[in-house]
Amino acid sequence: MAAVIIDGRETAKILRQELNIEIDTFKAKTGITPTLALLRVGDDPASVSYAGTIERGFKAAGLGFMPRLLPVSATQAEVVALVKELNADPAIHGIMIQEPLPEGLDQAVIIAALSPDKDIDGVHPLNTGRLAQAAPTGRPSGVEPFFIPATPAGGLELLKRYAIEIAGKHAVVVGRSTIVGKPAALLLLRENATVTLCHSRTRDLPATCRQADILCTAIGRARLVKGDWIKPGAAVIDFGVNFEDGQMCGDVDFEQAVEVAGFITPVPGGTGPMTNVMLMCNVLKAAKRMAAA
Amino acid sequence: MAAVIIDGRETAKILRQELNIEIDTFKAKTGITPTLALLRVGDDPASVSYAGTIERGFKAAGLGFMPRLLPVSATQAEVVALVKELNADPAIHGIMIQEPLPEGLDQAVIIAALSPDKDIDGVHPLNTGRLAQAAPTGRPSGVEPFFIPATPAGGLELLKRYAIEIAGKHAVVVGRSTIVGKPAALLLLRENATVTLCHSRTRDLPATCRQADILCTAIGRARLVKGDWIKPGAAVIDFGVNFEDGQMCGDVDFEQAVEVAGFITPVPGGTGPMTNVMLMCNVLKAAKRMAAA
Repeated sequence: MAAVIIDGRETAKILRQELNIEIDTFKAKTGITPTLALLRVGDDPASVSYAGTIERGFKAAGLGFMPRLLPVSATQAEVVALVKELNADPAIHGIMIQEPLPEGLDQAVIIAALSPDKDIDGVHPLNTGRLAQAAPTGRPSGVEPFFIPATPAGGLELLKRYAIEIAGKHAVVVGRSTIVGKPAALLLLRENATVTLCHSRTRDLPATCRQADILCTAIGRARLVKGDWIKPGAAVIDFGVNFEDGQMCGDVDFEQAVEVAGFITPVPGGTGPMTNVMLMCNVLKAAKRMAAA
Repeated sequence: MAAVIIDGRETAKILRQELNIEIDTFKAKTGITPTLALLRVGDDPASVSYAGTIERGFKAAGLGFMPRLLPVSATQAEVVALVKELNADPAIHGIMIQEPLPEGLDQAVIIAALSPDKDIDGVHPLNTGRLAQAAPTGRPSGVEPFFIPATPAGGLELLKRYAIEIAGKHAVVVGRSTIVGKPAALLLLRENATVTLCHSRTRDLPATCRQADILCTAIGRARLVKGDWIKPGAAVIDFGVNFEDGQMCGDVDFEQAVEVAGFITPVPGGTGPMTNVMLMCNVLKAAKRMAAA
Protein backbone atom coordinates (compact mmCIF):
# COMPACT_ATOMS: atom_id res chain seq x y z
CA MET A 1 0.00 0.00 0.00
CA ALA A 2 1.45 3.36 -0.95
CA ALA A 3 2.18 5.90 1.76
CA VAL A 4 0.05 8.88 2.67
CA ILE A 5 1.76 11.82 1.03
CA ILE A 6 2.20 14.64 3.49
CA ASP A 7 1.11 17.76 1.65
CA GLY A 8 3.36 20.56 2.84
CA ARG A 9 1.87 23.13 0.48
CA GLU A 10 -1.67 22.53 1.66
CA THR A 11 -0.64 22.38 5.32
CA ALA A 12 1.33 25.61 4.95
CA LYS A 13 -1.72 27.22 3.36
CA ILE A 14 -3.92 26.23 6.30
CA LEU A 15 -1.30 27.47 8.74
CA ARG A 16 -1.07 30.78 6.90
CA GLN A 17 -4.84 31.18 7.13
CA GLU A 18 -4.73 30.51 10.87
CA LEU A 19 -1.78 32.84 11.20
CA ASN A 20 -3.47 35.62 9.22
CA ILE A 21 -6.21 35.81 11.84
CA GLU A 22 -3.61 35.99 14.61
CA ILE A 23 -1.62 38.64 12.77
CA ASP A 24 -4.68 40.79 12.02
CA THR A 25 -5.84 40.53 15.62
CA PHE A 26 -2.42 41.48 16.97
CA LYS A 27 -2.10 44.42 14.58
CA ALA A 28 -5.59 45.67 15.41
CA LYS A 29 -4.98 45.42 19.16
CA THR A 30 -1.50 46.91 19.27
CA GLY A 31 -1.02 48.91 16.08
CA ILE A 32 2.25 47.02 15.67
CA THR A 33 3.26 45.35 12.39
CA PRO A 34 5.53 42.38 13.20
CA THR A 35 8.58 42.98 11.06
CA LEU A 36 11.49 40.86 9.89
CA ALA A 37 14.85 42.36 9.01
CA LEU A 38 16.69 40.14 6.55
CA LEU A 39 20.40 40.79 6.54
CA ARG A 40 22.42 39.65 3.57
CA VAL A 41 26.07 40.22 2.82
CA GLY A 42 26.80 39.95 -0.89
CA ASP A 43 24.68 38.55 -3.72
CA ASP A 44 24.73 34.77 -3.46
CA PRO A 45 22.08 33.87 -6.08
CA ALA A 46 20.35 31.21 -3.95
CA SER A 47 20.16 33.69 -1.06
CA VAL A 48 18.70 36.40 -3.31
CA SER A 49 16.07 33.95 -4.56
CA TYR A 50 15.25 32.76 -1.04
CA ALA A 51 14.94 36.36 0.13
CA GLY A 52 12.36 36.94 -2.60
CA THR A 53 10.31 33.96 -1.39
CA ILE A 54 10.41 35.24 2.17
CA GLU A 55 9.49 38.77 1.09
CA ARG A 56 6.46 37.63 -0.90
CA GLY A 57 5.23 35.48 1.97
CA PHE A 58 5.65 38.18 4.57
CA LYS A 59 4.02 40.89 2.45
CA ALA A 60 1.07 38.65 1.57
CA ALA A 61 0.53 38.00 5.29
CA GLY A 62 0.61 41.71 6.15
CA LEU A 63 3.93 41.36 7.97
CA GLY A 64 6.74 43.84 7.66
CA PHE A 65 9.82 42.90 5.66
CA MET A 66 12.97 45.00 5.71
CA PRO A 67 15.93 43.84 3.62
CA ARG A 68 19.29 45.13 4.86
CA LEU A 69 22.04 44.51 2.36
CA LEU A 70 25.77 44.89 2.73
CA PRO A 71 28.33 44.55 -0.06
CA VAL A 72 30.44 41.41 -0.24
CA SER A 73 33.37 43.59 0.85
CA ALA A 74 31.75 44.41 4.22
CA THR A 75 33.99 43.88 7.22
CA GLN A 76 33.16 41.81 10.27
CA ALA A 77 32.84 45.01 12.31
CA GLU A 78 30.39 46.48 9.81
CA VAL A 79 28.19 43.38 9.88
CA VAL A 80 28.24 43.26 13.68
CA ALA A 81 27.43 46.96 13.84
CA LEU A 82 24.40 46.45 11.59
CA VAL A 83 23.23 43.49 13.70
CA LYS A 84 23.46 45.66 16.80
CA GLU A 85 21.57 48.46 15.10
CA LEU A 86 18.78 46.01 14.23
CA ASN A 87 18.83 44.60 17.79
CA ALA A 88 18.22 48.11 19.11
CA ASP A 89 15.55 49.09 16.57
CA PRO A 90 12.11 48.80 18.21
CA ALA A 91 10.42 48.56 14.80
CA ILE A 92 12.26 45.28 14.08
CA HIS A 93 10.97 42.15 15.82
CA GLY A 94 12.94 39.44 14.10
CA ILE A 95 16.35 39.31 12.47
CA MET A 96 17.54 36.67 10.04
CA ILE A 97 21.09 36.56 8.73
CA GLN A 98 21.30 34.83 5.39
CA GLU A 99 23.89 32.18 4.77
CA PRO A 100 26.40 31.63 3.36
CA LEU A 101 28.35 34.64 4.60
CA PRO A 102 31.28 35.68 2.42
CA GLU A 103 34.66 34.21 3.33
CA GLY A 104 36.57 36.08 5.95
CA LEU A 105 33.51 36.77 8.09
CA ASP A 106 33.28 34.79 11.34
CA GLN A 107 29.76 33.42 11.47
CA ALA A 108 29.95 32.51 15.17
CA VAL A 109 30.84 36.07 16.14
CA ILE A 110 28.08 37.55 13.99
CA ILE A 111 25.47 35.13 15.34
CA ALA A 112 26.64 35.79 18.91
CA ALA A 113 25.93 39.49 18.27
CA LEU A 114 22.25 38.74 17.52
CA SER A 115 19.79 39.53 20.27
CA PRO A 116 18.40 36.11 21.27
CA ASP A 117 14.98 37.79 21.59
CA LYS A 118 15.01 38.67 17.89
CA ASP A 119 16.71 35.47 16.71
CA ILE A 120 13.59 34.14 15.02
CA ASP A 121 15.44 31.33 13.22
CA GLY A 122 16.86 30.00 16.48
CA VAL A 123 20.51 30.10 15.43
CA HIS A 124 21.91 31.83 18.53
CA PRO A 125 23.50 29.27 20.90
CA LEU A 126 21.34 30.59 23.74
CA ASN A 127 18.24 29.52 21.82
CA THR A 128 19.82 26.15 20.97
CA GLY A 129 20.71 25.69 24.63
CA ARG A 130 17.21 26.51 25.83
CA LEU A 131 15.78 24.03 23.35
CA ALA A 132 18.28 21.42 24.54
CA GLN A 133 17.43 22.07 28.19
CA ALA A 134 13.67 22.37 27.78
CA ALA A 135 11.57 19.81 29.61
CA PRO A 136 9.40 17.43 27.58
CA THR A 137 6.28 18.92 26.03
CA GLY A 138 3.37 19.14 28.41
CA ARG A 139 5.48 20.12 31.42
CA PRO A 140 6.65 23.66 32.24
CA SER A 141 9.67 24.14 29.97
CA GLY A 142 11.97 25.07 32.84
CA VAL A 143 13.76 27.60 30.67
CA GLU A 144 13.09 31.09 29.33
CA PRO A 145 11.18 31.41 26.03
CA PHE A 146 13.18 30.55 22.95
CA PHE A 147 12.99 30.22 19.19
CA ILE A 148 13.23 26.99 17.24
CA PRO A 149 14.81 26.95 13.75
CA ALA A 150 12.01 27.22 11.20
CA THR A 151 12.87 24.17 9.06
CA PRO A 152 12.79 21.47 11.77
CA ALA A 153 9.86 23.27 13.44
CA GLY A 154 7.98 22.90 10.14
CA GLY A 155 8.78 19.19 9.98
CA LEU A 156 7.46 18.67 13.51
CA GLU A 157 4.32 20.61 12.64
CA LEU A 158 3.71 18.26 9.71
CA LEU A 159 3.98 15.24 12.01
CA LYS A 160 1.47 16.83 14.35
CA ARG A 161 -0.97 17.91 11.65
CA TYR A 162 -0.98 14.37 10.27
CA ALA A 163 -1.55 13.03 13.80
CA ILE A 164 1.59 10.90 13.68
CA GLU A 165 2.39 9.63 17.15
CA ILE A 166 5.83 10.65 18.37
CA ALA A 167 6.00 9.80 22.07
CA GLY A 168 7.67 6.45 22.67
CA LYS A 169 8.51 6.04 18.99
CA HIS A 170 12.01 5.60 17.66
CA ALA A 171 13.01 8.63 15.62
CA VAL A 172 16.16 8.50 13.53
CA VAL A 173 17.59 11.78 12.30
CA VAL A 174 20.24 11.65 9.59
CA GLY A 175 22.45 14.72 9.45
CA ARG A 176 23.71 16.81 12.34
CA SER A 177 23.68 20.38 11.09
CA THR A 178 23.04 23.17 13.57
CA ILE A 179 20.11 24.44 11.54
CA VAL A 180 18.23 21.18 10.81
CA GLY A 181 19.53 17.85 12.10
CA LYS A 182 20.48 18.70 15.67
CA PRO A 183 17.42 20.84 16.44
CA ALA A 184 15.18 18.20 14.81
CA ALA A 185 16.67 15.61 17.17
CA LEU A 186 16.14 17.88 20.18
CA LEU A 187 12.56 18.62 19.12
CA LEU A 188 11.70 14.94 18.73
CA LEU A 189 13.31 14.22 22.09
CA ARG A 190 11.18 16.92 23.66
CA GLU A 191 8.15 15.13 22.18
CA ASN A 192 9.30 11.97 24.01
CA ALA A 193 10.66 10.04 21.06
CA THR A 194 13.71 7.85 21.54
CA VAL A 195 16.11 9.62 19.22
CA THR A 196 19.11 8.39 17.24
CA LEU A 197 21.27 10.97 15.51
CA CYS A 198 23.28 9.70 12.52
CA HIS A 199 25.84 11.41 10.33
CA SER A 200 28.67 10.86 7.89
CA ARG A 201 30.57 8.69 10.38
CA THR A 202 27.65 6.36 11.09
CA ARG A 203 28.66 2.84 10.17
CA ASP A 204 25.54 0.99 9.06
CA LEU A 205 23.26 3.79 8.01
CA PRO A 206 20.69 1.63 6.14
CA ALA A 207 20.23 -0.67 9.16
CA THR A 208 19.92 2.29 11.52
CA CYS A 209 17.37 4.00 9.29
CA ARG A 210 15.37 0.76 9.11
CA GLN A 211 14.77 0.98 12.87
CA ALA A 212 13.01 4.32 12.55
CA ASP A 213 9.33 4.76 13.18
CA ILE A 214 10.02 8.37 12.20
CA LEU A 215 12.88 8.97 9.78
CA CYS A 216 14.11 12.53 9.24
CA THR A 217 16.73 13.20 6.62
CA ALA A 218 18.82 16.35 6.36
CA ILE A 219 21.82 15.06 4.51
CA GLY A 220 22.07 16.96 1.26
CA ARG A 221 22.60 13.93 -1.00
CA ALA A 222 20.07 13.32 -3.73
CA ARG A 223 17.96 10.15 -3.29
CA LEU A 224 20.50 8.55 -0.93
CA VAL A 225 17.87 6.84 1.22
CA LYS A 226 16.45 3.83 -0.59
CA GLY A 227 13.17 2.03 -0.13
CA ASP A 228 14.77 -0.86 1.73
CA TRP A 229 16.22 1.57 4.30
CA ILE A 230 12.69 2.26 5.47
CA LYS A 231 10.66 0.32 8.00
CA PRO A 232 7.24 -0.51 6.54
CA GLY A 233 4.74 2.05 7.77
CA ALA A 234 7.33 4.58 8.97
CA ALA A 235 6.83 8.34 8.68
CA VAL A 236 9.51 9.87 6.47
CA ILE A 237 10.25 13.58 6.76
CA ASP A 238 12.66 14.64 4.04
CA PHE A 239 14.43 17.97 4.67
CA GLY A 240 16.77 17.48 1.72
CA VAL A 241 16.96 20.07 -1.03
CA ASN A 242 19.09 18.69 -3.83
CA PHE A 243 19.19 19.15 -7.56
CA GLU A 244 19.62 16.29 -10.01
CA ASP A 245 19.56 17.06 -13.73
CA GLY A 246 18.06 20.44 -12.88
CA GLN A 247 15.20 18.81 -10.94
CA MET A 248 14.74 19.40 -7.22
CA CYS A 249 14.72 16.23 -5.15
CA GLY A 250 15.12 15.18 -1.55
CA ASP A 251 17.52 12.91 0.33
CA VAL A 252 15.03 10.07 -0.04
CA ASP A 253 14.37 8.10 -3.20
CA PHE A 254 10.71 9.05 -3.21
CA GLU A 255 9.49 6.55 -5.83
CA GLN A 256 10.88 3.64 -3.82
CA ALA A 257 10.06 5.04 -0.41
CA VAL A 258 6.44 5.84 -1.13
CA GLU A 259 5.80 2.10 -1.57
CA VAL A 260 7.15 1.24 1.89
CA ALA A 261 6.53 4.20 4.18
CA GLY A 262 3.29 4.95 5.97
CA PHE A 263 3.67 8.70 5.51
CA ILE A 264 6.15 10.66 3.41
CA THR A 265 6.91 14.26 2.51
CA PRO A 266 7.60 14.87 -1.17
CA VAL A 267 10.35 17.21 -2.37
CA PRO A 268 9.35 19.76 -3.48
CA GLY A 269 6.05 20.36 -1.67
CA GLY A 270 6.87 18.77 1.68
CA THR A 271 8.95 20.42 4.38
CA GLY A 272 9.99 23.35 2.16
CA PRO A 273 6.72 25.30 2.11
CA MET A 274 6.49 24.98 5.90
CA THR A 275 9.75 26.81 6.59
CA ASN A 276 8.48 30.17 5.44
CA VAL A 277 5.29 30.01 7.47
CA MET A 278 7.19 28.90 10.59
CA LEU A 279 9.40 31.97 10.15
CA MET A 280 6.25 34.10 10.08
CA CYS A 281 4.99 32.40 13.24
CA ASN A 282 8.29 33.17 14.95
CA VAL A 283 8.27 36.83 13.92
CA LEU A 284 4.74 37.19 15.26
CA LYS A 285 5.83 35.44 18.47
CA ALA A 286 8.78 37.82 18.81
CA ALA A 287 6.53 40.85 18.31
CA LYS A 288 4.09 39.52 20.90
CA ARG A 289 6.89 39.00 23.42
CA MET A 290 8.27 42.47 22.78
CA ALA A 291 4.81 44.00 23.16
CA ALA A 292 4.26 42.12 26.43
CA ALA A 293 7.65 43.06 27.87
CA MET B 1 36.03 -13.12 30.01
CA ALA B 2 35.39 -10.46 32.61
CA ALA B 3 35.48 -6.79 31.60
CA VAL B 4 38.34 -4.40 32.18
CA ILE B 5 37.29 -2.40 35.20
CA ILE B 6 37.73 1.30 34.54
CA ASP B 7 39.42 2.68 37.61
CA GLY B 8 38.01 6.15 38.15
CA ARG B 9 39.93 6.71 41.38
CA GLU B 10 43.31 5.95 39.84
CA THR B 11 42.51 7.92 36.68
CA ALA B 12 41.37 10.89 38.76
CA LYS B 13 44.61 10.68 40.74
CA ILE B 14 46.70 10.80 37.58
CA LEU B 15 44.62 13.71 36.26
CA ARG B 16 45.09 15.57 39.55
CA GLN B 17 48.84 15.10 39.29
CA GLU B 18 48.84 16.46 35.74
CA LEU B 19 46.58 19.28 36.83
CA ASN B 20 48.77 20.16 39.83
CA ILE B 21 51.63 20.98 37.49
CA GLU B 22 49.35 23.16 35.37
CA ILE B 23 47.94 24.91 38.43
CA ASP B 24 51.37 25.56 39.95
CA THR B 25 52.68 26.90 36.65
CA PHE B 26 49.69 29.19 36.19
CA LYS B 27 49.94 30.50 39.75
CA ALA B 28 53.68 31.10 39.45
CA LYS B 29 53.27 32.93 36.14
CA THR B 30 50.29 35.08 37.04
CA GLY B 31 50.09 35.23 40.82
CA ILE B 32 46.44 34.26 40.45
CA THR B 33 44.83 31.47 42.48
CA PRO B 34 41.96 29.97 40.43
CA THR B 35 39.02 30.12 42.79
CA LEU B 36 35.61 28.49 42.93
CA ALA B 37 32.67 30.09 44.67
CA LEU B 38 30.19 27.45 45.79
CA LEU B 39 26.75 28.89 46.38
CA ARG B 40 24.34 26.93 48.51
CA VAL B 41 20.88 27.91 49.70
CA GLY B 42 19.86 25.98 52.81
CA ASP B 43 21.38 22.88 54.38
CA ASP B 44 20.40 19.90 52.27
CA PRO B 45 22.60 17.19 53.87
CA ALA B 46 23.76 15.64 50.58
CA SER B 47 24.75 19.11 49.33
CA VAL B 48 26.67 19.84 52.52
CA SER B 49 28.54 16.55 52.19
CA TYR B 50 29.27 17.15 48.48
CA ALA B 51 30.53 20.65 49.28
CA GLY B 52 33.00 19.10 51.76
CA THR B 53 34.32 16.77 49.06
CA ILE B 54 34.77 19.66 46.64
CA GLU B 55 36.44 21.81 49.30
CA ARG B 56 38.97 19.11 50.23
CA GLY B 57 39.84 18.48 46.58
CA PHE B 58 40.25 22.14 45.74
CA LYS B 59 42.36 22.92 48.82
CA ALA B 60 44.60 19.90 48.24
CA ALA B 61 45.21 21.11 44.68
CA GLY B 62 46.10 24.62 45.81
CA LEU B 63 42.92 26.07 44.30
CA GLY B 64 40.79 28.67 46.02
CA PHE B 65 37.45 27.62 47.48
CA MET B 66 34.92 30.14 48.73
CA PRO B 67 31.63 28.84 50.13
CA ARG B 68 28.78 31.35 49.96
CA LEU B 69 25.80 30.25 51.99
CA LEU B 70 22.30 31.65 52.12
CA PRO B 71 19.57 30.58 54.52
CA VAL B 72 16.74 28.41 53.24
CA SER B 73 14.51 31.48 53.62
CA ALA B 74 16.50 33.46 51.01
CA THR B 75 14.39 35.09 48.33
CA GLN B 76 14.90 34.73 44.60
CA ALA B 77 16.12 38.34 44.46
CA GLU B 78 18.69 37.68 47.17
CA VAL B 79 20.06 34.63 45.39
CA VAL B 80 20.23 36.46 42.05
CA ALA B 81 21.94 39.41 43.75
CA LEU B 82 24.59 37.11 45.22
CA VAL B 83 25.14 35.45 41.81
CA LYS B 84 25.64 38.88 40.26
CA GLU B 85 28.05 39.87 43.02
CA LEU B 86 30.10 36.72 42.31
CA ASN B 87 29.92 37.38 38.54
CA ALA B 88 31.47 40.79 39.15
CA ASP B 89 34.13 39.67 41.65
CA PRO B 90 37.49 39.43 39.84
CA ALA B 91 38.85 37.08 42.53
CA ILE B 92 36.22 34.45 41.61
CA HIS B 93 36.81 32.43 38.44
CA GLY B 94 34.14 29.80 38.70
CA ILE B 95 30.69 29.69 40.27
CA MET B 96 28.74 26.57 41.11
CA ILE B 97 25.19 26.67 42.42
CA GLN B 98 24.35 23.60 44.43
CA GLU B 99 21.15 21.73 43.80
CA PRO B 100 18.51 21.16 44.91
CA LEU B 101 17.43 24.75 45.50
CA PRO B 102 14.70 25.22 48.12
CA GLU B 103 11.14 25.27 46.83
CA GLY B 104 9.92 28.64 45.65
CA LEU B 105 13.19 29.54 43.94
CA ASP B 106 13.14 29.50 40.13
CA GLN B 107 16.21 27.58 39.09
CA ALA B 108 16.04 28.74 35.46
CA VAL B 109 16.12 32.39 36.48
CA ILE B 110 19.01 31.86 38.89
CA ILE B 111 21.03 29.91 36.32
CA ALA B 112 20.29 32.56 33.68
CA ALA B 113 21.85 35.12 36.03
CA LEU B 114 25.16 33.23 36.05
CA SER B 115 27.94 34.67 33.92
CA PRO B 116 28.50 32.02 31.22
CA ASP B 117 32.24 32.74 31.55
CA LYS B 118 32.19 31.59 35.18
CA ASP B 119 29.68 28.76 34.70
CA ILE B 120 32.26 26.03 35.27
CA ASP B 121 29.68 23.26 35.52
CA GLY B 122 28.19 24.16 32.14
CA VAL B 123 24.61 24.60 33.34
CA HIS B 124 23.88 27.93 31.65
CA PRO B 125 21.87 27.41 28.43
CA LEU B 126 24.47 29.41 26.51
CA ASN B 127 27.08 26.80 27.39
CA THR B 128 24.67 23.97 26.53
CA GLY B 129 23.95 25.67 23.22
CA ARG B 130 27.61 26.09 22.36
CA LEU B 131 28.23 22.43 23.13
CA ALA B 132 25.24 21.48 20.96
CA GLN B 133 26.47 23.67 18.10
CA ALA B 134 30.15 22.77 18.35
CA ALA B 135 31.70 21.08 15.33
CA PRO B 136 33.07 17.56 15.73
CA THR B 137 36.36 17.23 17.62
CA GLY B 138 39.38 17.92 15.48
CA ARG B 139 37.78 20.77 13.55
CA PRO B 140 37.56 24.40 14.71
CA SER B 141 34.63 24.39 17.11
CA GLY B 142 32.80 27.17 15.24
CA VAL B 143 31.53 28.60 18.52
CA GLU B 144 32.94 30.63 21.38
CA PRO B 145 34.65 28.77 24.26
CA PHE B 146 32.30 26.98 26.61
CA PHE B 147 32.16 24.77 29.66
CA ILE B 148 31.00 21.17 29.72
CA PRO B 149 29.24 19.75 32.80
CA ALA B 150 31.84 17.99 34.94
CA THR B 151 30.13 14.60 35.29
CA PRO B 152 29.72 13.73 31.60
CA ALA B 153 33.10 15.34 30.86
CA GLY B 154 34.61 12.91 33.38
CA GLY B 155 32.92 9.95 31.70
CA LEU B 156 34.30 10.99 28.32
CA GLU B 157 37.77 11.40 29.83
CA LEU B 158 37.58 7.80 31.12
CA LEU B 159 36.73 6.54 27.63
CA LYS B 160 39.71 8.43 26.25
CA ARG B 161 42.15 7.35 28.96
CA TYR B 162 41.20 3.73 28.35
CA ALA B 163 41.66 4.27 24.59
CA ILE B 164 38.10 3.20 23.83
CA GLU B 165 37.24 4.12 20.25
CA ILE B 166 34.24 6.42 19.97
CA ALA B 167 34.13 7.64 16.36
CA GLY B 168 31.73 5.58 14.27
CA LYS B 169 30.57 3.57 17.29
CA HIS B 170 26.97 3.40 18.44
CA ALA B 171 26.61 5.11 21.80
CA VAL B 172 23.39 4.71 23.75
CA VAL B 173 22.73 7.16 26.56
CA VAL B 174 19.95 6.30 29.00
CA GLY B 175 18.58 9.33 30.82
CA ARG B 176 18.04 12.84 29.49
CA SER B 177 18.86 15.14 32.37
CA THR B 178 20.33 18.54 31.61
CA ILE B 179 23.33 17.85 33.79
CA VAL B 180 24.32 14.33 32.65
CA GLY B 181 22.33 12.54 29.94
CA LYS B 182 21.86 15.28 27.35
CA PRO B 183 25.39 16.70 27.58
CA ALA B 184 26.80 13.14 27.49
CA ALA B 185 24.89 12.55 24.25
CA LEU B 186 26.15 15.84 22.78
CA LEU B 187 29.73 15.04 23.82
CA LEU B 188 29.64 11.58 22.23
CA LEU B 189 28.14 13.07 19.08
CA ARG B 190 30.96 15.58 18.95
CA GLU B 191 33.35 12.61 19.11
CA ASN B 192 31.60 11.22 16.03
CA ALA B 193 29.60 8.46 17.67
CA THR B 194 26.15 7.64 16.36
CA VAL B 195 24.10 8.50 19.43
CA THR B 196 20.78 7.21 20.70
CA LEU B 197 19.19 9.00 23.64
CA CYS B 198 16.74 6.92 25.70
CA HIS B 199 14.53 7.86 28.62
CA SER B 200 11.49 6.86 30.62
CA ARG B 201 9.29 6.80 27.52
CA THR B 202 11.59 4.52 25.53
CA ARG B 203 9.69 1.38 24.61
CA ASP B 204 12.17 -1.47 24.42
CA LEU B 205 15.00 -0.25 26.60
CA PRO B 206 16.84 -3.60 26.93
CA ALA B 207 16.92 -4.10 23.14
CA THR B 208 18.10 -0.53 22.59
CA CYS B 209 20.85 -0.87 25.19
CA ARG B 210 21.96 -4.12 23.58
CA GLN B 211 22.85 -2.17 20.42
CA ALA B 212 25.35 -0.02 22.25
CA ASP B 213 29.08 -0.22 21.68
CA ILE B 214 29.22 2.42 24.40
CA LEU B 215 26.44 2.40 26.98
CA CYS B 216 26.09 5.37 29.33
CA THR B 217 23.53 5.23 32.11
CA ALA B 218 22.27 8.22 34.06
CA ILE B 219 18.91 6.95 35.19
CA GLY B 220 18.93 6.94 38.97
CA ARG B 221 17.52 3.43 39.42
CA ALA B 222 19.64 0.92 41.28
CA ARG B 223 20.92 -1.99 39.16
CA LEU B 224 18.24 -1.49 36.49
CA VAL B 225 20.51 -2.47 33.60
CA LYS B 226 21.01 -6.23 33.54
CA GLY B 227 23.79 -8.30 32.03
CA ASP B 228 21.65 -9.35 29.08
CA TRP B 229 21.02 -5.68 28.18
CA ILE B 230 24.68 -5.37 27.28
CA LYS B 231 26.34 -6.19 24.00
CA PRO B 232 29.35 -8.45 24.59
CA GLY B 233 32.48 -6.33 24.66
CA ALA B 234 30.67 -3.01 25.08
CA ALA B 235 32.07 -0.16 27.18
CA VAL B 236 29.70 0.64 30.06
CA ILE B 237 29.90 4.05 31.74
CA ASP B 238 27.65 4.13 34.77
CA PHE B 239 26.81 7.63 36.03
CA GLY B 240 24.21 6.31 38.48
CA VAL B 241 24.50 7.11 42.16
CA ASN B 242 21.90 5.07 44.02
CA PHE B 243 21.67 3.57 47.48
CA GLU B 244 20.36 0.08 48.17
CA ASP B 245 20.35 -1.16 51.75
CA GLY B 246 22.70 1.68 52.62
CA GLN B 247 25.20 0.63 49.94
CA MET B 248 26.04 2.88 47.01
CA CYS B 249 25.43 1.29 43.63
CA GLY B 250 25.03 2.34 40.02
CA ASP B 251 22.29 2.01 37.41
CA VAL B 252 23.96 -1.14 36.12
CA ASP B 253 23.91 -4.54 37.80
CA PHE B 254 27.68 -4.65 38.04
CA GLU B 255 28.06 -8.33 38.96
CA GLN B 256 26.14 -9.39 35.84
CA ALA B 257 27.49 -6.69 33.54
CA VAL B 258 31.15 -7.28 34.33
CA GLU B 259 30.83 -10.76 32.79
CA VAL B 260 29.56 -9.38 29.47
CA ALA B 261 31.03 -5.92 28.95
CA GLY B 262 34.47 -5.18 27.56
CA PHE B 263 34.99 -2.23 29.90
CA ILE B 264 32.93 -1.07 32.85
CA THR B 265 33.01 1.64 35.50
CA PRO B 266 32.25 0.44 39.03
CA VAL B 267 30.08 2.45 41.43
CA PRO B 268 31.61 3.76 43.59
CA GLY B 269 35.06 4.35 42.13
CA GLY B 270 34.11 4.94 38.49
CA THR B 271 32.69 8.16 37.16
CA GLY B 272 32.25 9.73 40.61
CA PRO B 273 35.88 10.51 41.41
CA MET B 274 36.28 12.11 37.98
CA THR B 275 33.63 14.78 38.54
CA ASN B 276 35.60 16.67 41.14
CA VAL B 277 38.78 16.76 39.09
CA MET B 278 36.88 17.90 35.98
CA LEU B 279 35.46 20.76 38.06
CA MET B 280 39.03 21.72 38.98
CA CYS B 281 40.05 21.60 35.31
CA ASN B 282 37.17 23.92 34.47
CA VAL B 283 38.01 26.42 37.20
CA LEU B 284 41.61 26.53 35.98
CA LYS B 285 40.34 26.99 32.42
CA ALA B 286 38.07 29.84 33.52
CA ALA B 287 40.96 31.54 35.34
CA LYS B 288 43.17 31.17 32.26
CA ARG B 289 40.50 32.71 30.04
CA MET B 290 39.97 35.59 32.43
CA ALA B 291 43.71 36.20 32.65
CA ALA B 292 44.01 36.18 28.86
CA ALA B 293 41.04 38.50 28.32
